[in-house]
Parts: sequence; C-alpha cells; structure tokens
Amino acid sequence: MPHISLPDLPGIRGPMAFRPETAKPLNELAEILLRDNNNTLSRGERELIGTYVSSLNDCFFCQNVHGAMAGYYLNCDINEIDSVKREFQSTSLSPKMKSLLSIAASVQKSGKHVSKQQIEDAKNVGATDNEIHDTVLIAAAFCMFNRYVDGLGTWAPEDRQFYVNRAKQRAAEGYRDLDLNR
Amino acid sequence: MPHISLPDLPGIRGPMAFRPETAKPLNELAEILLRDNNNTLSRGERELIGTYVSSLNDCFFCQNVHGAMAGYYLNCDINEIDSVKREFQSTSLSPKMKSLLSIAASVQKSGKHVSKQQIEDAKNVGATDNEIHDTVLIAAAFCMFNRYVDGLGTWAPEDRQFYVNRAKQRAAEGYRDLDLNR
Repeated sequence: MPHISLPDLPGIRGPMAFRPETAKPLNELAEILLRDNNNTLSRGERELIGTYVSSLNDCFFCQNVHGAMAGYYLNCDINEIDSVKREFQSTSLSPKMKSLLSIAASVQKSGKHVSKQQIEDAKNVGATDNEIHDTVLIAAAFCMFNRYVDGLGTWAPEDRQFYVNRAKQRAAEGYRDLDLNR
Repeated sequence: MPHISLPDLPGIRGPMAFRPETAKPLNELAEILLRDNNNTLSRGERELIGTYVSSLNDCFFCQNVHGAMAGYYLNCDINEIDSVKREFQSTSLSPKMKSLLSIAASVQKSGKHVSKQQIEDAKNVGATDNEIHDTVLIAAAFCMFNRYVDGLGTWAPEDRQFYVNRAKQRAAEGYRDLDLNR
C-alpha cells in the first residue's frame, strides 16, 4: 500500500494523478529528454540509459516501463535489455553507448563520481557535448523519478509482460499528453 | 573547468543556458514545488528541504543558493541554516519539519529507504499527504539537480556571501522566468 492515499494507478501514475501540477513539468522533461527528435541519440538509446539507471536504483516499475520502451525502439527482447543492465560492457553496444552508460552509472552514485577520464574516453569514441549533457541529465532525472516512485511506496504490476505489451502504445502517445487517469 | 563547453555561468545556470529546452521544465518544476502559494509548507520550509538534501549530496552550489533562499524566507542567518544541515534534530524546528527532513534524508539515499514508521511519525505530528508528497518530490528533485550540477563539473562562486546577496532578488523573480543569460 502506498505511503499516502493515491489514486489506484501503477507506479509513477499514482502520484502524477494525485498532483497534476507537478506531473506536467515532469512529463514535459521526459518528453524532451527521451522522445524529442532533435537529438543524435536515438529514442532507444535514451530509454536504455534511463532503464540502466533505474536498474541501478532497483526501481522495478521504472526499469520495466523504460526497459520495454528501449526494447520496442531497439527491436530487441527483454533478455537483451536485461543483459545490458547486468553487464553492458560485454554486450554488442557501440563503444560510444558503453562510454555513456559508464557516465550514467557514475551519475547514479553522485555527480561527483563522474571523472575527467570518463568524459575524455567518451569524447574519444565520438560522444558530443550534447550527448554527454543529455546522458548526465537523463541519469539525474531517473534518480529523481526512481525516488519519487519508491519513496511514496507505490505498487507496480509484477508481470513483466505487462510493460512489454504497453510499450507500443506508449511510444505512439509519448509522455507529454499522458492521460493521467488511464 | 566543466566537463563540456558550457556558457560561463555559475552552477546550474551553465547547463541551463546550454540546453534551454530542458531548462524550461526544470525551472517550471522548481517554481511549483518551491514557490507556488497553494501549499501548506511555507517557501522557506520547502527551500530548507532542498538545502538539506543538497547538503547530504555535498553539492556546494545548490546548498548555498537554496540555503540563502531558505534564510531569506525564514529570516535567519547562514549559521542557523548550517545547523539544520549539521543536526536538524537539535534545532528549534517544529516536530513536523523534523519528521519531513527525516523523510527527505531517506529519499536522498534511495526511495526504498523511506519507512512506514517515518511516514506514521510524520502523520502523527500533523504532516498531511500533500506535505509528504511534496517532501518526497522536493528531495527527489534535488537528487536530480545536484547530480546535474556536479555531474557536468560546473563551477560555483566560493564566497558564500555571494548567494546570500542574491537571495532577495531571486525570491522576487522566482524560477520560472529566470533569465538564463544573467
């Protein structure tokens, strides 16, 4: 049971329906960071960064919602997403994505954990300033979303297929115009 | 020197000027959470929660910007704010504020650290569901802001009086219409 009386919706949707005033900028931020087309990181790559950070924060709801989104965009199944969460360095991801996931992992611990060496390594394999900026902000934003979801004790469907089944529709609708009551 | 080429502005203002698209919802979120008048927590109390979390995250820029704002609203000096950061339980803050700061401290570690007992204690000293919600989201949001500021290696004025001197003007202007280039 959630810590406070929330509308009976899974994960972040409960607190978002409870407080639509703050839901609006939260969804706007997610929309721009994760979906905006004016970005050299694909939607799938950005969802993967959010998924990985949510996994490090042990947030079941967020890592499954966004893992399913990443899988949908990148055309891969849940096992491949899980292997990224478990050990991304041994996957077939590009050196650039690996360097960005490494930066995201540092941000998850604290901003101060990001090292000059990590940044230099990322730039050496082609990461741009914009891509590094967005990686840091996506990772930081998921440190917020994850704490919001778990800090209020929200519930989440346990069946991971639930999230996979919804990914296509979510991809079509986006985050900005989310119907908070559905 | 920041990790990427940012406009030469202190703290979060550099990355916000670098990427105004994401600055907009970030400032909108801060405005609603910290300044909106439709809230039973005062502006000073909300700034104090953000200050305390920024202190736990060791973010020099954020704890000084928002510590100065809290001091301005609560009409107390920097030493009193510092004593809240150091040991809020022994200050003259209300039992309700102490219970909310305790919840914020748990959120800073992870959402899962918030316990049923903490929530019950807060409700027993008069905290409402709205106040608990906003405390969790303010704490979570500062876990994002702090990581954004430090994860990009931004610089910050070392003289703490700089922040105190700017608090009155910042309080008048708010966060929403922040001129990102000033």
